[in-house]
Amino acid sequence: MKLTHIRTFQLSALFFLFPTVVYADPLPSWNEGNNKEKIISFVESVSTFGSDEYVPENKRIAVFDNDGTLWGEQPLYFQIIFAMNRASQMPPEMLETDAQRAAAQGDSEGMLKGGQESLQEVFDLTHSGQTVGAFSEAVSDWLENSRHPETNLRYDDMIYQPMLELLSYLRDNEFETYIVSAGGLHFMRTFASKAYGIDPQNVIGSTTNTEVSDENGDLVISKTPGIGWYNDGNSKIIAIDRHIGQRPIIAGGNSDGDVPMMIWTTQGDGPRLGIMIHHTDSEREASYDRDSAIGGLDQGLKEAADREWALVDMANDWRVIYPSSDSQ
Amino acid sequence: MKLTHIRTFQLSALFFLFPTVVYADPLPSWNEGNNKEKIISFVESVSTFGSDEYVPENKRIAVFDNDGTLWGEQPLYFQIIFAMNRASQMPPEMLETDAQRAAAQGDSEGMLKGGQESLQEVFDLTHSGQTVGAFSEAVSDWLENSRHPETNLRYDDMIYQPMLELLSYLRDNEFETYIVSAGGLHFMRTFASKAYGIDPQNVIGSTTNTEVSDENGDLVISKTPGIGWYNDGNSKIIAIDRHIGQRPIIAGGNSDGDVPMMIWTTQGDGPRLGIMIHHTDSEREASYDRDSAIGGLDQGLKEAADREWALVDMANDWRVIYPSSDSQ
Repeated sequence: MKLTHIRTFQLSALFFLFPTVVYADPLPSWNEGNNKEKIISFVESVSTFGSDEYVPENKRIAVFDNDGTLWGEQPLYFQIIFAMNRASQMPPEMLETDAQRAAAQGDSEGMLKGGQESLQEVFDLTHSGQTVGAFSEAVSDWLENSRHPETNLRYDDMIYQPMLELLSYLRDNEFETYIVSAGGLHFMRTFASKAYGIDPQNVIGSTTNTEVSDENGDLVISKTPGIGWYNDGNSKIIAIDRHIGQRPIIAGGNSDGDVPMMIWTTQGDGPRLGIMIHHTDSEREASYDRDSAIGGLDQGLKEAADREWALVDMANDWRVIYPSSDSQ
Repeated sequence: MKLTHIRTFQLSALFFLFPTVVYADPLPSWNEGNNKEKIISFVESVSTFGSDEYVPENKRIAVFDNDGTLWGEQPLYFQIIFAMNRASQMPPEMLETDAQRAAAQGDSEGMLKGGQESLQEVFDLTHSGQTVGAFSEAVSDWLENSRHPETNLRYDDMIYQPMLELLSYLRDNEFETYIVSAGGLHFMRTFASKAYGIDPQNVIGSTTNTEVSDENGDLVISKTPGIGWYNDGNSKIIAIDRHIGQRPIIAGGNSDGDVPMMIWTTQGDGPRLGIMIHHTDSEREASYDRDSAIGGLDQGLKEAADREWALVDMANDWRVIYPSSDSQ
């Protein structure tokens, strides 16, 4: 045995016996600054046994919006792009309304002209009349074969690297992480596990109606027309109560539809953290807030200041946006 | 140091180095027999890496009904007894319907005469018009101060010791255990964690409507009249899809309302186990099935035979019923 080998062995042994106390940066894609510091100091204090702010593991619940918080949402919610793609593949005789025909032609303005009601016609066409299993496969196929018009990335690669790191960091500290989104429950579940490490039972979203039928002896769940649950605004609080049954200690969002959930979360006793993502990066992603039809953020900017939430400035706080842009 | 001390030390060290391979019985309150064997062999095969029947941990989902499956349900569902107790404490001017007045007088026949509709009047009176927090405290107070008319036990001590052992055994083998019951979500959560080790987010049940209001700046969730979700029959399947998002591999129940969930569970690919509890023990608990208004079991007896579920005969399969009866 040469001396160098012995040395290596000794160093490894020492490393094993005395693990280093300088930990790796848990959020390498976050630039140094107040927000990164606020998040890390919060997580450390609630996770450190004996700390005044210690929170037992089973109370470490963190909830996050999806569209605009964990992945992109411009120029249209990705699920709406999916719906339009699906409509375009349907036989013309199935397109019964103006909104459905506009969707099939890729005319988003025409599709949205009639507001929520016309959008619902498009969802009824593209999100119902099929089993949950068949719908999930259709979403997976679409994710596999579609690219975003501006980035040319897969939609499920347009997830935010800094938020992936935050989710992992929280789980490493025994947090349970949930999605609480206005996005579709069955839509999000097709990628949430792989993209975010969030299992199906931790996804809370909007749903179509569903029904159970007996297909030659097999019980099958199908998606049927109409909204079973629309998960936005105050409804996010009700859904958290129904599904989780305890008030989270961290809530993250990016638009006014997330504000009630974030107020309710941060009003609880003990340590609480609100994280509001502000889209400020027109170069690397998109810049919008008060006047945006998608992801409008107005009240949330005021609340973030008043309630001392971390107001994340994407342009300044994030070193990278997407996992694939890590070298940019 | 005396010799005996040295010996003790050596034995402990050996024990530490060579843990015994004869494991303790995981289900000591289950008598030996086909059902115990079926359950243990199922759990061992799905949990043993390399086994043909191996199921990864994140797919080990087990769902159980509550009333009559994890705790008693005679002579009336305990939640109905709670509702009657609450009605009896209300000022007479709040009792507006015949059913509400019957409930307040402890007249269950009178209360149920109008069927589901009159029962709903009693639930509207006793389960709404209050915050979720206040309701939960009322349930906890009631559990603390009430005793079952026949056993004289606390209601949350009338849980089935063999099922507690089964829940623990499953969790020890990395199963996630859920309640999927027609019982009230907020009602069950007040005791599920302490009684069963089942956290709030793993309780799926029926709910009143709920709404969020702003009380001097605080967002508060309240229970309001009407049924938000009635969790029985096929609705249990829909709730599992919505809440868990994957088909369980074990489902347990005791009445026909559990049959769809048990059929759907056991129809899945790969290893599946149905466990149907049959109340056969008139001496230690109660004996009922086809003709019972509470926990009626008819179709389920046939399905259990056809589908080779474990049909648990409480009188023969269970050594004890309640934790407190362990010495009987």
